[in-house]
Amino acid sequence: MKIADRLAELDIVLPKPMIVPAGICLPFSWVRIVGNRACISGHGPTNAQGQIEGPFGKVGREVTPEQAHVAARLTALAMLSSLQQELGDLDRIKSWVRVFGMVNCAPGFRATPGVINGFSDLILSVFGPERGQHSRSAIGVAELPFDIPVEIEAEVLIG
Amino acid sequence: MKIADRLAELDIVLPKPMIVPAGICLPFSWVRIVGNRACISGHGPTNAQGQIEGPFGKVGREVTPEQAHVAARLTALAMLSSLQQELGDLDRIKSWVRVFGMVNCAPGFRATPGVINGFSDLILSVFGPERGQHSRSAIGVAELPFDIPVEIEAEVLIG
Amino acid sequence: MKIADRLAELDIVLPKPMIVPAGICLPFSWVRIVGNRACISGHGPTNAQGQIEGPFGKVGREVTPEQAHVAARLTALAMLSSLQQELGDLDRIKSWVRVFGMVNCAPGFRATPGVINGFSDLILSVFGPERGQHSRSAIGVAELPFDIPVEIEAEVLIG
Repeated sequence: MKIADRLAELDIVLPKPMIVPAGICLPFSWVRIVGNRACISGHGPTNAQGQIEGPFGKVGREVTPEQAHVAARLTALAMLSSLQQELGDLDRIKSWVRVFGMVNCAPGFRATPGVINGFSDLILSVFGPERGQHSRSAIGVAELPFDIPVEIEAEVLIG
Repeated sequence: MKIADRLAELDIVLPKPMIVPAGICLPFSWVRIVGNRACISGHGPTNAQGQIEGPFGKVGREVTPEQAHVAARLTALAMLSSLQQELGDLDRIKSWVRVFGMVNCAPGFRATPGVINGFSDLILSVFGPERGQHSRSAIGVAELPFDIPVEIEAEVLIG
Repeated sequence: MKIADRLAELDIVLPKPMIVPAGICLPFSWVRIVGNRACISGHGPTNAQGQIEGPFGKVGREVTPEQAHVAARLTALAMLSSLQQELGDLDRIKSWVRVFGMVNCAPGFRATPGVINGFSDLILSVFGPERGQHSRSAIGVAELPFDIPVEIEAEVLIG
């Protein structure tokens, strides 16, 4: 099944490309392609229009684990939008490789795997268990840009 | 010398595969193989039975640097166990590539390289200076899953 | 244009190789080459002699964002020095791939992208927009070795 069809089947509409907030300069690529590797910059949650999406703050304090789980899912959609933009066709993704999940943790919040599952579950649901399979880390960091609750970087192989 | 023989020479018995704590879902692979690359998920210390091993908490507070050094060594053993499980034969590892070490730091604890040396020294001892050579970062993070003191992700090349 | 000429044009003299502080053992490589990939260990700012360069501490507290931006630029120079040392010739760098920027953040300091821009801008200025293009994350970590304000790890492709 084509990825576009699978997304439709799941009622998923990808968000528009991320809108960088005014006054911010990000002099890098959301996706860097070298050979058959696509290295994906750290992404955060966006809304349908591509704006950075709240709630903002630390998971376990301003943001609940459930909200952070949703944010990780939105981060997956934002990443797929960047890949769609860069590759033209998500079917070019042959396999997921590595996922590095970073959670903006309040002191004592350690349930980071459950948060990043919002990302992994979406990817596995869209790409299936073989192609969507990935290595992963899910850690708590001190701060994230724009006070987003979740940031995720990744790598995929393309054809 | 075969890696299995070298491990025996060092009196090292690899732990059993990691036992995921009850109620936790980890929908990713401990080792993701793409081509000749094996990308290894973030691992932590386990005991011989594969259970997550304490002491738990922040290095420089609940956990001493010496204990964290041991935890980093145990993390290397847990990773070798995952690689053994996935590759069938550790001799398939042609070279270590990248090691990313994360220490669960109490405020002000900065001696992260010494902690992650527990990992690097074990790998170099088992694989030798050529094959075991790796790039490395050793940083302090805000929180780690299960409150483990050390988490390490890595990549190796396989044949 | 050769990279050496471009550096001269920009009045850049690369620092000497990093001097590891007394009593510290770092049993890894600053650059690990496997095939056409060069994986670069976490680097921090150094001075012309290769000594770790201050100011030290957390960005947003002991270190201003402007000082951290300079530290990120110095980190790029330290990394180029390591690459020069390892490759013999910086023209062997065919493309930048991935940049992972870690900022030693005081609580509440989130302007990490602006800090790591000090690194990205230097790389883009030296290598140009095609060859210097990279994916990037810029996160806030809890602690960094030697209390440096910025640490950056990266990967480049070589010929």
